[in-house]
Amino acid sequence: MEEGKEQSKSALKKAEKAAKMAAQKAEKAAKQTNLPVVGGKKTDDIIGITVSKADNFSQWYQEVVLKAELIEYYTEISGFFIMRPATMHIWNTIRKWFQERIEGLGVEETNFPMFLSQKSLEKEKDHVEGFAPELAWVTKAGDKDLEVPVAVRPTSEAVMYPYYSKWIRSHRDLPLRLNQWNSVVRWEAKQTTPFLRAREFMWQEGHTAHLTEALAGEEVLQILEFYAGVYEQLLAVPVVRGKKTEAEKFAGGYYTTTVEGYIPSNGRGIQGATSHCLGQNFSKMFDITVEDPEQKGKHVHVWQNSWGLSTRVIGVMVMIHGDDKGLVLPPRIAKIQAIMIPVGLTAKMTAEEKKAHLERVDELYKTLKNAGIRTDVDTREGYTPAWKFNDWELKGVPLRLEFGPKDAAKEVVSYARRDTGEKGTIAISELTTKIPELLETIQSDLYTKAEASYREHRKQITKWEDVVPALDAKNVVLIPFCEVPECEDRIKVLTTGRPDENPDVPESQKAPSMGMKSLCIPFEQPEGLVKGETKCLSPECSRLAASWTMFGRSY
Amino acid sequence: MEEGKEQSKSALKKAEKAAKMAAQKAEKAAKQTNLPVVGGKKTDDIIGITVSKADNFSQWYQEVVLKAELIEYYTEISGFFIMRPATMHIWNTIRKWFQERIEGLGVEETNFPMFLSQKSLEKEKDHVEGFAPELAWVTKAGDKDLEVPVAVRPTSEAVMYPYYSKWIRSHRDLPLRLNQWNSVVRWEAKQTTPFLRAREFMWQEGHTAHLTEALAGEEVLQILEFYAGVYEQLLAVPVVRGKKTEAEKFAGGYYTTTVEGYIPSNGRGIQGATSHCLGQNFSKMFDITVEDPEQKGKHVHVWQNSWGLSTRVIGVMVMIHGDDKGLVLPPRIAKIQAIMIPVGLTAKMTAEEKKAHLERVDELYKTLKNAGIRTDVDTREGYTPAWKFNDWELKGVPLRLEFGPKDAAKEVVSYARRDTGEKGTIAISELTTKIPELLETIQSDLYTKAEASYREHRKQITKWEDVVPALDAKNVVLIPFCEVPECEDRIKVLTTGRPDENPDVPESQKAPSMGMKSLCIPFEQPEGLVKGETKCLSPECSRLAASWTMFGRSY
Repeated sequence: MEEGKEQSKSALKKAEKAAKMAAQKAEKAAKQTNLPVVGGKKTDDIIGITVSKADNFSQWYQEVVLKAELIEYYTEISGFFIMRPATMHIWNTIRKWFQERIEGLGVEETNFPMFLSQKSLEKEKDHVEGFAPELAWVTKAGDKDLEVPVAVRPTSEAVMYPYYSKWIRSHRDLPLRLNQWNSVVRWEAKQTTPFLRAREFMWQEGHTAHLTEALAGEEVLQILEFYAGVYEQLLAVPVVRGKKTEAEKFAGGYYTTTVEGYIPSNGRGIQGATSHCLGQNFSKMFDITVEDPEQKGKHVHVWQNSWGLSTRVIGVMVMIHGDDKGLVLPPRIAKIQAIMIPVGLTAKMTAEEKKAHLERVDELYKTLKNAGIRTDVDTREGYTPAWKFNDWELKGVPLRLEFGPKDAAKEVVSYARRDTGEKGTIAISELTTKIPELLETIQSDLYTKAEASYREHRKQITKWEDVVPALDAKNVVLIPFCEVPECEDRIKVLTTGRPDENPDVPESQKAPSMGMKSLCIPFEQPEGLVKGETKCLSPECSRLAASWTMFGRSY
Repeated sequence: MEEGKEQSKSALKKAEKAAKMAAQKAEKAAKQTNLPVVGGKKTDDIIGITVSKADNFSQWYQEVVLKAELIEYYTEISGFFIMRPATMHIWNTIRKWFQERIEGLGVEETNFPMFLSQKSLEKEKDHVEGFAPELAWVTKAGDKDLEVPVAVRPTSEAVMYPYYSKWIRSHRDLPLRLNQWNSVVRWEAKQTTPFLRAREFMWQEGHTAHLTEALAGEEVLQILEFYAGVYEQLLAVPVVRGKKTEAEKFAGGYYTTTVEGYIPSNGRGIQGATSHCLGQNFSKMFDITVEDPEQKGKHVHVWQNSWGLSTRVIGVMVMIHGDDKGLVLPPRIAKIQAIMIPVGLTAKMTAEEKKAHLERVDELYKTLKNAGIRTDVDTREGYTPAWKFNDWELKGVPLRLEFGPKDAAKEVVSYARRDTGEKGTIAISELTTKIPELLETIQSDLYTKAEASYREHRKQITKWEDVVPALDAKNVVLIPFCEVPECEDRIKVLTTGRPDENPDVPESQKAPSMGMKSLCIPFEQPEGLVKGETKCLSPECSRLAASWTMFGRSY
């Protein structure tokens, strides 16, 4: 959760202001459309997304998450967001999926207090330095000052590990594996963005202790694979698995593994979720030891991991799949997978004919529901089918089913896919097999499309002068890199555009461009690195390359 | 969560100190038993509960929740507790049960920020007065003072309702029913007790809006019945359903319904969970209106409810079912319902015989597991069966299964019930039917026993002079009551023992006894109240009785 240090604040503020104005306008208009319809008069005002994803990605995103009713801005306190039911459905689906898997590993659930004391916080210096500027301090209870202020947890290492020391007395207490689902607070000074960067966010945090480095390391990768699974299998979002460089690893940890995503619209990388091996750093500070079972009398410090996945995943999914009509949800995480809309009920039809048709719709709805398809039917009065189509498209429902008298005559249901717009018909007799198939096709097509885009925009670069043009063309880059933190700092500086200082840059392009930072050292290393020969790509570096490292502009 | 204002602090502190000392002793001893066993030497030190439930209920409770590993004291900050996996299993079982039921009502899940602003807090005066002394204020982020301090939510009315005003635009948006699972902070000045009174606790809070009082009122009772179900069906704890008096209702609400429990060991009542109708108080303050569908142009304020169930339920369950050996868990919420322990593996047996027997145990274990019984098998080496028996009894596992060569010869498994100690055998061929039956019998016996105790100790009283003796005999009382708050205040004063001021009270009884307060006006009213005739029981009151009201010393 520490990505994207450079953002054009003024541009974002402008976009946010525009989004808010658009939202107010939308709200006003929505108020009108929600008024009872009098005398059969219908309204077709649909308040969709007011900008295109390609033209103004930032505003587009803020409108989508708001209008698809994923979030609401918490205007009382800036940097906080309200998670609405559409979000909670996605998060709970992920939670259930992940929970089952970690239970399979023997991880147990716990719940520690939300506050931590200054004392335990100070034990691990690197760790506290990483979080200190963002800590929210409670200094008063009622109208009395607390004797000792307490901080709201930004993460729970310092909350939990004093008790690991108490609970772990013998190697037979290992592994100790605990996880909690909660929310944490990091009082960001930077611009906040729904899901991606908020002052409070929901996540799970796992904290485990093992006898050996090997056992800890094994779990780090098992968890990372679950994180990749959340993205790939549930959210249809491709990720690259890898290790963070020293400069980007978790404060106080030993090494950090990560799944890294990619946002095609702006070519930025985005950290997906991280699984850390903390090594023995914390066990030394918090005195967590056991007697070595191999060597009586000798005490060893345990090896610890911590790993976390947050609601950020939802933001990444929205950014990747959404389009100018709004949200596009992968079927596996959609609360409503198929929305059925009665159509063709013309003024010529008798009330009885209409009633009979709606009864048929209800039958179909029940058939689908019984087949385990998450379905709803939209019989709201006072809205045209076209208005309803737009409304459900805005909310991202994967499949629209239309059923009118003409469909009934042919014993079919008409459908439209949200992702591609493709239309067709399905025989009623085949609904319960064809619709689940179609939903799985949508799921896999969404992934395939996103995966192809990520693959195309992961450029292997061997000439320094090709780096910035590749970034400008919305790529992330794989470069030979020495992995040394100082070199990484310089690379960021060298790739930061400073057109304001350059007289050759035209006035219209005077916004500075973001420098790149390392995203990860992918586990899958491309060919072409010759050991003892290939140099680090930085023009200022004379060291040998240690790996192909993925760099990019990033969140 | 506002019960039990009078507690003998010094007595509790003493008990807590004793519990901590016992815990330290236990820890030290446990450390010894956890040491690897050398040369086949076995230890039988079991660290059970050091006091009896009857002699020192308060210390007994604190030892049980600690030693059964339900909680750990968070020594970093007083008044906070760590919820351990055994607790989380119970809470998650309750969560799942309740969640399914409210989803059936159409309640959706949401997640609002944990902080609230002074501004929204001040809108409902009665409400803020109720919570102000316990608010935890964040005044600093990093090393910077916040421009406007924010409070951690003690409950979310003031966090959520500004948005209800935004989201509810038409009567067609009603009912709006949202629920969230989170934790809240109330910085209690009073002595805290695990589960019953903590500065942070987990709960669910439902917040709904309806068009009419009748619709709101219907939901209030549906939810209350779910709360009763959590106690009665899952926790085997009987409750009395009723309405709170004006003096005890929720701050700022219209009326409060409640399920009230009873702790036989000290005769105290305990509030179980509350379902409030807020009336239109909050909708007027937060301006939540819709156009009356019956009367065009006329706007009406919505009717609101809020309802909450917290981890307190677990404390009540522990207090009611536990015994001198430790925790007693009802089978429906026990993570391990049956623990299988191999016995009779004597020194005379060959290694092969032992192996063969353990394989048989493993077969039985798998049979039970496949039958859906939550089972574990204790094959820990270095502990005698007796030690294991005590250990699992301490942790409250409902059923112990023993299997030795003698059982094998007879094709039976021996069992011992945790609740009654009853022992017997079950034919192996009948295990998968008899054990689920037995578990259900245990569940229902626990309930029946607790229900009988509560019924016996709910005394209908018609003479004022019988009240205090009834309380002293560990009863709660049902008395004719006028329901007027001032009268209730006086009743509390009149029943508070002040033996210090009374020369007739012997020195040994000089601890003051707690006054009684109203618990609820039970929905099920006993006979015997003559309208316009029966007087309020208070000797100082000349009003007529409005109901039989349940009073008691309470948490």
